[in-house]
Amino acid sequence: MDNNDRKSFEKERYLLNDLLVQYSNKTTKRFFSLDTQAYEGGALDKKTKEMLGMVASLVLRCDDCIKYHLIQCHNLGVSDKEIEEVVAIGLIVGGSITIPHIRRAVSFWDGLGEDK
Amino acid sequence: MDNNDRKSFEKERYLLNDLLVQYSNKTTKRFFSLDTQAYEGGALDKKTKEMLGMVASLVLRCDDCIKYHLIQCHNLGVSDKEIEEVVAIGLIVGGSITIPHIRRAVSFWDGLGEDK
Amino acid sequence: MDNNDRKSFEKERYLLNDLLVQYSNKTTKRFFSLDTQAYEGGALDKKTKEMLGMVASLVLRCDDCIKYHLIQCHNLGVSDKEIEEVVAIGLIVGGSITIPHIRRAVSFWDGLGEDK
Amino acid sequence: MDNNDRKSFEKERYLLNDLLVQYSNKTTKRFFSLDTQAYEGGALDKKTKEMLGMVASLVLRCDDCIKYHLIQCHNLGVSDKEIEEVVAIGLIVGGSITIPHIRRAVSFWDGLGEDK
Amino acid sequence: MDNNDRKSFEKERYLLNDLLVQYSNKTTKRFFSLDTQAYEGGALDKKTKEMLGMVASLVLRCDDCIKYHLIQCHNLGVSDKEIEEVVAIGLIVGGSITIPHIRRAVSFWDGLGEDK
Amino acid sequence: MDNNDRKSFEKERYLLNDLLVQYSNKTTKRFFSLDTQAYEGGALDKKTKEMLGMVASLVLRCDDCIKYHLIQCHNLGVSDKEIEEVVAIGLIVGGSITIPHIRRAVSFWDGLGEDK
Repeated sequence: MDNNDRKSFEKERYLLNDLLVQYSNKTTKRFFSLDTQAYEGGALDKKTKEMLGMVASLVLRCDDCIKYHLIQCHNLGVSDKEIEEVVAIGLIVGGSITIPHIRRAVSFWDGLGEDK
Repeated sequence: MDNNDRKSFEKERYLLNDLLVQYSNKTTKRFFSLDTQAYEGGALDKKTKEMLGMVASLVLRCDDCIKYHLIQCHNLGVSDKEIEEVVAIGLIVGGSITIPHIRRAVSFWDGLGEDK
Repeated sequence: MDNNDRKSFEKERYLLNDLLVQYSNKTTKRFFSLDTQAYEGGALDKKTKEMLGMVASLVLRCDDCIKYHLIQCHNLGVSDKEIEEVVAIGLIVGGSITIPHIRRAVSFWDGLGEDK
Repeated sequence: MDNNDRKSFEKERYLLNDLLVQYSNKTTKRFFSLDTQAYEGGALDKKTKEMLGMVASLVLRCDDCIKYHLIQCHNLGVSDKEIEEVVAIGLIVGGSITIPHIRRAVSFWDGLGEDK
Repeated sequence: MDNNDRKSFEKERYLLNDLLVQYSNKTTKRFFSLDTQAYEGGALDKKTKEMLGMVASLVLRCDDCIKYHLIQCHNLGVSDKEIEEVVAIGLIVGGSITIPHIRRAVSFWDGLGEDK
Repeated sequence: MDNNDRKSFEKERYLLNDLLVQYSNKTTKRFFSLDTQAYEGGALDKKTKEMLGMVASLVLRCDDCIKYHLIQCHNLGVSDKEIEEVVAIGLIVGGSITIPHIRRAVSFWDGLGEDK
């Protein structure tokens, strides 16, 4: 299944999440709610937290995680310039091995803008 | 080539393994036989070893390795509950970055059950 | 601080854990209790789960995590032969880059036996 | 050489940086100036960028990189609560394998506060 | 988009690079030129450097990076036997987790030969 | 145990290797001989292979592996300029997260030269 644009990405997640819940025990389910909780606004606002999630996903090179955080960043009004700076830090920290992921990230981000 | 179900996964492996052997030197070929040997029953039984291979593949986030070990686990009678507990440990050790791989893993595992 | 034997390892953990709790927010504290929960006996027994934690720590190359799981394995009666097989799988999956960690792991494991 | 507090950490860096420059070719030297440039204020302020560097270092589990960014965060006035939230995101994304690094990070961070 | 042969791989790169440049700030653009510079002949010749890039990409398990360096190696006259030895070292260092990437690498390499 | 110079590094290896062999099963022992075999001269000479081992160890950020390959490189007559170019490629591929390892690597390399 291809998930290179927001619609297909979210459809795939939706379809697979049903199975994910079905095969999740108590520990796994509690982890999922912690995962949501970690990005709620606190001393740092949600926007900053989503950019933290984005750079962490980039240096760990997980395309789906990158796409997820890009959608959140887009919803929270992160600008093109801000994403470029998050990407630059991820690239410097993680090196050229992140470039193929950055290529796919900017393509996905560009598509998010076109949805507007 | 898509390899999201057992049949296409095994077909792809079969096709690519021919080339793999053709471009393998002595060191590489010996590694492959060690790789097989490591999972043979000993002080630990094969089932435990395949679950060890599964959790190692999950935290290192290699989809094809996960699928391979899921097939072995399935063949050896690992239950849904057992896989869920292996997945929970992989998720706790490896963090949310493993979630997209878990999503694909449970989808593949679910398909294995339907083959029965 | 050196932590190459059980006593100094556990002393360091004890000292640092105080600070860890002091600087942990709700999300972090909940993660810690999930981390404990994941290794409780269920469909898989505790011994199997600690070996899963051990191999995951080995392929991710975290010395302190390896030591922690080796202590748990030791407490639960995992034998030398079983540890050797867990290590062999970690080595095959993770490659020669794990060898320095294995060197330190067997040294720590050997020390655990001498405590008896 | 131990580098668990700011003074010894900065002394070690100072001593080793001389050798580092001596064995750096043009590419390496240019990388170092890019590395500095990436954290300069722009669309995102320096404080946000240092927190991005911190979370990236945490999920990639590099103690020295974590210490470096903690010093920068401290200099820029990042609060305890903010660090705790950065750490919580790193822990959720990177999993329990990051815990030993978090233990050392909060100990180092605590020491920075005592310097004041 | 599938990129399993040279033509489709290079087409995808070409298409995405336009977006990549559009969303690259000064730091990112400078990194790209450093990335090119690092592989220019010096004390080590270009061929050796591309093999270094290849083994680094293999142990870090980045398919697109592997493909890129395989194309460069092919252009510079690296032989099948030489690639097999680079692959063997990557496999030994990185372990069985690299095998799916090696499978795809040799398939791509084999295709490069057929272009001649 | 500190291993920042050749003598103490080799002493530590020597001491720990005894235990390593004692706790190694057949699979592990065979892996060790494969590991040696992979670096023997073939289509590529030993010097090139040790530089491949060095860059792979650098991007995977294993200090002990780096030190081991630096000793081999030194024994085989790799020059300062050549090491600098290997390091530059590792830095570009692996990013700033490799810098603390590079700092320790050049310090170790510098010490090897002084032994002469």
